Amino acid sequence: MKTIKVANIPGDGVGKEVVPAATEVLHALADLHGSLKFEFTEFPWSCEYYLEHGAMMPEDGLEILKEFDAIFLGAVGNLKLVPDHVSLWGLLIKIRREFEQVINIRPAKLLKGVQSPLVNPKDFDMIVVRENSEGEYSSIGGNIYKDEDEIAIQNAVFSRKASERAMRYAFELAKKRNKHVTSATKSNGIIYSMPFWDKVFKEVAKEYPEIKTDSQHIDALAAFFVTHPEKFDVIVASNLFGDILTDLGAAIMGSVGIAPAANINVNGKYPSMFEPVHGSAPDIIGKGIANPIGQIWTAKMMLDHFGEEDLGTILLDIVESVTADGFLTPDIGGSHTTKEVTDEVIARINNYKSEKLNEKT
Amino acid sequence: MKTIKVANIPGDGVGKEVVPAATEVLHALADLHGSLKFEFTEFPWSCEYYLEHGAMMPEDGLEILKEFDAIFLGAVGNLKLVPDHVSLWGLLIKIRREFEQVINIRPAKLLKGVQSPLVNPKDFDMIVVRENSEGEYSSIGGNIYKDEDEIAIQNAVFSRKASERAMRYAFELAKKRNKHVTSATKSNGIIYSMPFWDKVFKEVAKEYPEIKTDSQHIDALAAFFVTHPEKFDVIVASNLFGDILTDLGAAIMGSVGIAPAANINVNGKYPSMFEPVHGSAPDIIGKGIANPIGQIWTAKMMLDHFGEEDLGTILLDIVESVTADGFLTPDIGGSHTTKEVTDEVIARINNYKSEKLNEKT
Ligand SMILES: CC(C)[C@H](C(=O)O)[C@@H](O)C(=O)O
Ligand SMILES: CC(C)[C@H](C(=O)O)[C@@H](O)C(=O)O
Repeated sequence: MKTIKVANIPGDGVGKEVVPAATEVLHALADLHGSLKFEFTEFPWSCEYYLEHGAMMPEDGLEILKEFDAIFLGAVGNLKLVPDHVSLWGLLIKIRREFEQVINIRPAKLLKGVQSPLVNPKDFDMIVVRENSEGEYSSIGGNIYKDEDEIAIQNAVFSRKASERAMRYAFELAKKRNKHVTSATKSNGIIYSMPFWDKVFKEVAKEYPEIKTDSQHIDALAAFFVTHPEKFDVIVASNLFGDILTDLGAAIMGSVGIAPAANINVNGKYPSMFEPVHGSAPDIIGKGIANPIGQIWTAKMMLDHFGEEDLGTILLDIVESVTADGFLTPDIGGSHTTKEVTDEVIARINNYKSEKLNEKT
Repeated sequence: MKTIKVANIPGDGVGKEVVPAATEVLHALADLHGSLKFEFTEFPWSCEYYLEHGAMMPEDGLEILKEFDAIFLGAVGNLKLVPDHVSLWGLLIKIRREFEQVINIRPAKLLKGVQSPLVNPKDFDMIVVRENSEGEYSSIGGNIYKDEDEIAIQNAVFSRKASERAMRYAFELAKKRNKHVTSATKSNGIIYSMPFWDKVFKEVAKEYPEIKTDSQHIDALAAFFVTHPEKFDVIVASNLFGDILTDLGAAIMGSVGIAPAANINVNGKYPSMFEPVHGSAPDIIGKGIANPIGQIWTAKMMLDHFGEEDLGTILLDIVESVTADGFLTPDIGGSHTTKEVTDEVIARINNYKSEKLNEKT
């Protein structure tokens, strides 16, 4: 029996609705597998937790999480309770940083039965590799002067090490896909970090002569996501650019509620974290209509990460059959609830299992 | 006779094709007006100029430009000749900075006859007010260490003065429009500049109780441009965020070749600069198929700027009648040339004039 120990952090808002849903799905899959087991431990770390304890997680929170194989997170943030930069740097970004989850990967691909907002979305299937440890998200900077003279300075930090690492990850991924890597840049406007990024990209590209490459300025690239999403395979981007592109990717997929993501610790020292692209979605909390597919697809990425690609593929196929058959939450034009969609996914997993058993007998 | 002295800088690539086109249109409009005259002086400053002179413009370039009422620019950049950060900081961004063109305004609105890539674009009509003097585009930063240790640092600088100024501009604009200002932020990820931006926005908003406000993170906002563009009226954004949003705005308008822009000097000390959103478009140079509408619509913004709003409205109505009747360049699905579209616009201006004359007799 292979046991995967997962720390569940539902977090805020709809996180609390979709993490339990996807957890059930994972149990059903483990069941289907036969010799795989998930052990989930839930942690209530969130903005509500902050109000009670003055911190987003206990002081030894990271020590606790370190013992797990993976972290399965919903969403963090509740502006009514805690300013975003406090909640996120105290939990989400803290885990990404401290556990050296230096790569964030986010596929964008249209599921059958889901309507894209694009007239002619063609058959896009891309994956954004986001540098997840530095760049525009740094804690270097501050304010000076008061009142009308006040100035805030924010430092973006780009190291060759981290840039190369993200780029190599992208090239390795492209090898297994359509052999095309696009670099997101802005070297025409941002004159220190982005020309540097371009230089490193060109050097890394030389190591992969079999991979086609191009560089696009982030403004043009964002526009291309709308006009020609089918032109991309793997895109490598800085922290901020990756953030923007993946929300756009989610939008053209039909809903941010669908889009999956993984924060990967590449050196194996710490657990990786699996959390969908969407946030806590304050407007629909408690209505039972949050789209569980983002979290379920994120679970597939966790399966892939643990070498269970077959199970991952089964799961995504089932999810796609469910959307194709019209089991859709309101964000993608349906009227089904979180529970109905989840139950349908689980029913089909169980069904798949009995079919397989029947085949055997 | 009101004379407007304009410095034309066609720049690179298709800039050289669309600036002359829009200049002809302006002459026709002046003719229609009767007591308005444009005096154009053309400057060859461009990447080719750089190759010959080692600079994008002469040393006294700004002195020369200062004498004009406005600058009418096409596009800057030709990667095959000059690295972008050199060409742009040597001409486009230099003019924006030195002439204190602190505000960049860019409308996004669908023209009749032009197909948006969105399934249901509704009737969006928004305008992005982009802070144009500082932010992520700063010349503060640099590199340290060599080889595998190399690090590049880029400083984003946000002053209260510039942030407030852009925000006030946005609020004043919203007063004359739909009374709604959206602030583009990323205070959950970028922890010094963006919470500061939010703070200033809240304070400025207090001065305009009649204006509805909201703040959206740039990632979500980019996605909203695709899913709900009709929800926006005026959007105020930092230099980089404004850059990204306006290319997206151009994309949902059907083509970056359509989108207009103005760089406004608000204190009246220096000329403002009118340049469309699109770049030099190396892939279509010399084919005669560049869309002239971006540059022509930009000319309308110049007319508005000089108090000729009536003429500006006539021009945009004529442009829209031309697209509605199917005079479209290939980027928007037609097969007309730059010249054909331009000639049609001019013919309709002349026609408008003879109709008016007939009315009078
Ligand atoms: C060419 C580039 C520096 C410029 C910018 O980013 O400002 C362009 O994209 C624009 O939007 O005018
Ligand atoms: C919540 C926020 C800090 C975060 C980010 O920008 O990284 C989110 O948008 C994401 O993409 O995971």
